[in-house]
Amino acid sequence: MTSVNRQIRLAQRPVGRPDENTWKITTESIPEPSEGQFAVRVDYASVDPAMRGWINDVRSYVPPVGIGEVMRAHCVGRVHSSNNTDYPVGQIVSGPFGITEYAVSDGTDVQVVDEALAPARTWLGGLGFPGMTAYFGLLDVGRMKPGDTVLVSGAAGAVGSLVGQIAKLHGCRVIGIAGGRDKCGWLTDELGFDVAIDYKFESVGRALHNAAPDGIDVYFDNVGGQILNSALAVLRTGARVVLCGAISGYNATDPQPGPSRYLSLLVNRASMSGFIVTDYLDRFPEGMAAMSEWIRRGLVITREQVETGGVNAFGSTLNMLFDGANTGKLVLQMHEE
Amino acid sequence: MTSVNRQIRLAQRPVGRPDENTWKITTESIPEPSEGQFAVRVDYASVDPAMRGWINDVRSYVPPVGIGEVMRAHCVGRVHSSNNTDYPVGQIVSGPFGITEYAVSDGTDVQVVDEALAPARTWLGGLGFPGMTAYFGLLDVGRMKPGDTVLVSGAAGAVGSLVGQIAKLHGCRVIGIAGGRDKCGWLTDELGFDVAIDYKFESVGRALHNAAPDGIDVYFDNVGGQILNSALAVLRTGARVVLCGAISGYNATDPQPGPSRYLSLLVNRASMSGFIVTDYLDRFPEGMAAMSEWIRRGLVITREQVETGGVNAFGSTLNMLFDGANTGKLVLQMHEE
Repeated sequence: MTSVNRQIRLAQRPVGRPDENTWKITTESIPEPSEGQFAVRVDYASVDPAMRGWINDVRSYVPPVGIGEVMRAHCVGRVHSSNNTDYPVGQIVSGPFGITEYAVSDGTDVQVVDEALAPARTWLGGLGFPGMTAYFGLLDVGRMKPGDTVLVSGAAGAVGSLVGQIAKLHGCRVIGIAGGRDKCGWLTDELGFDVAIDYKFESVGRALHNAAPDGIDVYFDNVGGQILNSALAVLRTGARVVLCGAISGYNATDPQPGPSRYLSLLVNRASMSGFIVTDYLDRFPEGMAAMSEWIRRGLVITREQVETGGVNAFGSTLNMLFDGANTGKLVLQMHEE
Repeated sequence: MTSVNRQIRLAQRPVGRPDENTWKITTESIPEPSEGQFAVRVDYASVDPAMRGWINDVRSYVPPVGIGEVMRAHCVGRVHSSNNTDYPVGQIVSGPFGITEYAVSDGTDVQVVDEALAPARTWLGGLGFPGMTAYFGLLDVGRMKPGDTVLVSGAAGAVGSLVGQIAKLHGCRVIGIAGGRDKCGWLTDELGFDVAIDYKFESVGRALHNAAPDGIDVYFDNVGGQILNSALAVLRTGARVVLCGAISGYNATDPQPGPSRYLSLLVNRASMSGFIVTDYLDRFPEGMAAMSEWIRRGLVITREQVETGGVNAFGSTLNMLFDGANTGKLVLQMHEE
């Protein structure tokens, strides 16, 4: 076992797409836990669209990552050494350990991982923030009802793929928007979506009119931009638009246009609402119980796309999100097995 | 008494601002009520921003006014002849009589006006659709709570002036946006607004940061455009944006940009919701009871700006709305007194 611990730090704030100047790799020794702490060997780091926002120097729902700080990330790993009896050596845990091979923690925001429910890396996906985002975003913010027509963009991504499946198992008609034939085939053939629209191949506006001639009740938006506008054009009376993300514009250097069709909200008595999943922390036990049961019974399929290469591969792995190069939850394996 | 009955009909759909080619005046004899009907001499017609939408040939919450049809309008008048015992001659009524000097009705959507509560023309304002729009839009859609900071645009208009007063009497801090020193003075000096921002004179964005350094809880939007965008920039966590109208863009011939700051809804867990006041018809008795009591006690001041000239003046009166030339509820007096 090596005694080296490498991590990714923010070198400078990117203008537009992050590149090799955005990140730097630093090397330290493996940290020793102080009294009450434990050290974790990080196995998998979650790579998420929200990371792009965290490295902008703007007021948001969390403070930005500072220059020189270890990049913020949610991870799973195994306790490696411990001065905290709640977290004995060998215990698998998830927590905000960052893009680092080893981390110390006092247990703040750390969750014990039960591999009997699902493999550890699924705790970064279906049983992690993406799962809770899909669950509370669709059911609570989106007020999905059985029989609704539910539209989701970024449908082959970590959150979108779960949103569609949760809607299906509640008796909704589900339309997904994703990029490419393989993703769309996965949605309809494996996950049970009723319709998948390939935004790289067809006009989303026209496809939506065909797929939902009577309009949609819920739109779960992960992408923003022109697809949001197309969705606004097909709202039914009382529709709910759930703002989860807007990845299409995250690397933009010019001001991005807003949704010009927003007055569809007015004439259709509809609403557009944002949320942050951590507002639901108190209700995570409810969401975890539901998701783990659905996963156990095979009603919800979770998929992680594991990229190897550890810290060396972080920058390129993050950028895969902006290229739509992932299917399911993108995770970075932090060590060679 | 003359036997002539003149009305305004839609001659052609305007591109941009309505002009003299949009309307035509026709002359008929005063209609005779059939069995079950009554004829109304129309005293005042309500002139509303929504009229601009009604003459576009687009799917909306009501069908468009057809070419050649009498222009749709809500009015108050007096029963002139009657074959309906529920509406005897002399009864004052409000209803969708249109821009016409006389109309017949079978009582559909007609309300009996009680002048003991307020003068007849106030039934087009504080006790009419504008009053119900303010009441349900602020309290139900906007979920205003005592102590909230409430922002309203079009604040010197029919709806906006009521929104601000209702918020004040519930213990809110109220900021209004209006155009011109006179309107702004009316808001603060007569209606009790805490702050009035003159959008013609000062930067709304900067003024908002000064007036609401901790942000706003409710934004009641009557205007859209850049003012909506400025409001989105100062939302507090959990804020509610109520979409009531977007008069800044109603005559636009180019596509209007959407609110580029809409992602403020996401990071602030906020919502933006549209509504149509007629969805609340079942609850109008509640709204009417509240508004009439507040008006009676002087807690809410209603103001109508009466334009004379009848059908000859309809086109120019409507366009006053787009020039911001009205303070309070704009009504058109349909006959010389």
